[in-house]
Amino acid sequence: MPTKENNLALERLRRSMSRRNLDAILVSQPENRRYVSGFSAVDSSIAESSGVLLIPRRGQPFLLTDSRFELHARAEAAGFEVLLYPKGLLALLGKILPDLQIRHLGFESEYSLHAVVKRMEELLAPVELVPLVGLVEKMRDQKEEEELGAIERSVQLNEQVFAEVYQDLAPGQTEVEVALKIESAMRMAGAERPSFDTIVAAGPNGAMPHAVPSSRPIREGEPVVIDMGLVLDGYCSDMTRTVVLGRVDSRTRERFRLVRRSQLAGLAMVRAGVKARDVDLAARQVLEEGGLADYFTHGLGHGVGLAVHEAPSLNRRSRRKLKTGQVVTVEPGIYIPHWGGIRLENMVVVGKDGCRELNRDTTFLDL
Amino acid sequence: MPTKENNLALERLRRSMSRRNLDAILVSQPENRRYVSGFSAVDSSIAESSGVLLIPRRGQPFLLTDSRFELHARAEAAGFEVLLYPKGLLALLGKILPDLQIRHLGFESEYSLHAVVKRMEELLAPVELVPLVGLVEKMRDQKEEEELGAIERSVQLNEQVFAEVYQDLAPGQTEVEVALKIESAMRMAGAERPSFDTIVAAGPNGAMPHAVPSSRPIREGEPVVIDMGLVLDGYCSDMTRTVVLGRVDSRTRERFRLVRRSQLAGLAMVRAGVKARDVDLAARQVLEEGGLADYFTHGLGHGVGLAVHEAPSLNRRSRRKLKTGQVVTVEPGIYIPHWGGIRLENMVVVGKDGCRELNRDTTFLDL
Repeated sequence: MPTKENNLALERLRRSMSRRNLDAILVSQPENRRYVSGFSAVDSSIAESSGVLLIPRRGQPFLLTDSRFELHARAEAAGFEVLLYPKGLLALLGKILPDLQIRHLGFESEYSLHAVVKRMEELLAPVELVPLVGLVEKMRDQKEEEELGAIERSVQLNEQVFAEVYQDLAPGQTEVEVALKIESAMRMAGAERPSFDTIVAAGPNGAMPHAVPSSRPIREGEPVVIDMGLVLDGYCSDMTRTVVLGRVDSRTRERFRLVRRSQLAGLAMVRAGVKARDVDLAARQVLEEGGLADYFTHGLGHGVGLAVHEAPSLNRRSRRKLKTGQVVTVEPGIYIPHWGGIRLENMVVVGKDGCRELNRDTTFLDL
Repeated sequence: MPTKENNLALERLRRSMSRRNLDAILVSQPENRRYVSGFSAVDSSIAESSGVLLIPRRGQPFLLTDSRFELHARAEAAGFEVLLYPKGLLALLGKILPDLQIRHLGFESEYSLHAVVKRMEELLAPVELVPLVGLVEKMRDQKEEEELGAIERSVQLNEQVFAEVYQDLAPGQTEVEVALKIESAMRMAGAERPSFDTIVAAGPNGAMPHAVPSSRPIREGEPVVIDMGLVLDGYCSDMTRTVVLGRVDSRTRERFRLVRRSQLAGLAMVRAGVKARDVDLAARQVLEEGGLADYFTHGLGHGVGLAVHEAPSLNRRSRRKLKTGQVVTVEPGIYIPHWGGIRLENMVVVGKDGCRELNRDTTFLDL
């Protein structure tokens, strides 16, 4: 993201710090770190951090990292001073916090290991560590114009990859083969990476919403659920299509159309001020009328941005209201044991009077 | 792993519980969970758990998971009772801990989020939560015969994939293209997944030990560092080869041979009872004599098993002694800015009087 965004994020963070009487905060969650600083490194696991932001309430913000990431850090984190920790993060913090006169230090308690926090408390005393929950996440909720542009490009590249792989899709190919083709095509098309493990689930395997691609060959006539997404310029896409190779029997067609009507009912409900649960219920109602609501075993959708799953959730338990600039998926599905599954998933931006669809290609929404 | 192993792991865990006066422990770290129960699910992130083991000091052990993983859990976790948590792990624990009369509950503090532990402390009171560090990890250190067999198969499949991709390697292919080919070939050959993101770093990019594959085409005559590994039956392999396409100039050949001599010096030192740091120093000494030790910027090796990086570490700071049945990498490398890198990495089993190499194919160890 451009510097303007970063500064805005920094300003908002600093206002939060004032309200909470914090002298500084540590931002370690990779998407939050990227949102605030532009530093794009990914953590291979929570125990292998690529770096941490140290943001004092006033003055110079820092990006603390190790030598492997030095060049990336300097190139990407405009406005941040890059400090390296050859002896580890804690040793560096122990050295610089006293100079910065930091006594109350916020940390992301939903992205910090219990053992690490205990070690910090011991080594950094008398600094008081203050757990924070969802501080940057809340700021990421409603997207800026530049972010919406990046998400739209991600969605469209994802559609392009799907269209490309669909051309060569044929009975006899295995699920895992198709999933690999999709992920290779994503990276060859310039995506940073898939935004999650691609799902290709044909026939009975489609009855599991989170099926892992198997070595089972795809057969003619069965529904094939393909759930895929990619990361482009940091922003995620997420889309599900269900296709049938060869002749489509009337039962499959009927079920497909029911799911599509359910999706349209959900989409029609999306606008700022509407309760997230009411969007879910509108889509669920259509499946109810078709007698298949019991087979819709998950929520209708979720937010998408720097993370592929973020706020808000659209499900029966979510009481929050939608807000402009949120980006959400609308993805009803049915999962019928032994038979298979059908899911259709598009992404939309919540607007004042309705929603704007980010998906353009409607080829695969009619069977 | 077969049931015998599991029972052994369970018995050892229970002895630890007795010593620490714990009524039960929670095992949430994915490799530990697999080691103890056989349940092979992977966590997509620490915040999205596929399940947790609850092991009381006496009686029935449990695998707590959600409906998505029910079938896998029942098929894989022999001897464990599978319980589902439709309302989340904490709700289920709150229900069953009192019946099991559990008051002192150990948890893995290096794989538990600070915020989650705080929530557990509140919701499960008066249960006392006791942080544990490295309990199962220490048990995984020295491998059983069955595990060594699995690791050896993983190493050999990895070599097979490398040989296959090498056949088609040609100047003009980009680093990212080659990395994708490798990862596709792994999965087509039956690997569960790559054990880490494949590194392909040609020419100057090779000067970064952890380079990310770029869209730069590989040129003739430059060293190409390929670091790759896969997971087979849960066990990891990890191997680095450095190859040159076309004519090899004399400087490159000289440097390659120096790194290979350094590797052989390290390998010659590996046996039970030797200090890990002395193995590192033996390899480093050879680079020192060649005047290039300053370009060897990382440790000589690390343990490999269910995780691709586990104990023990072979570096200048590690004072522990090697033990029989440990599996370690021996991977000296040099990284010369603007020129490139050379790294050679093999895996060995530590024995009483020396080591046994798990790599068989020596084709690529001479330039």
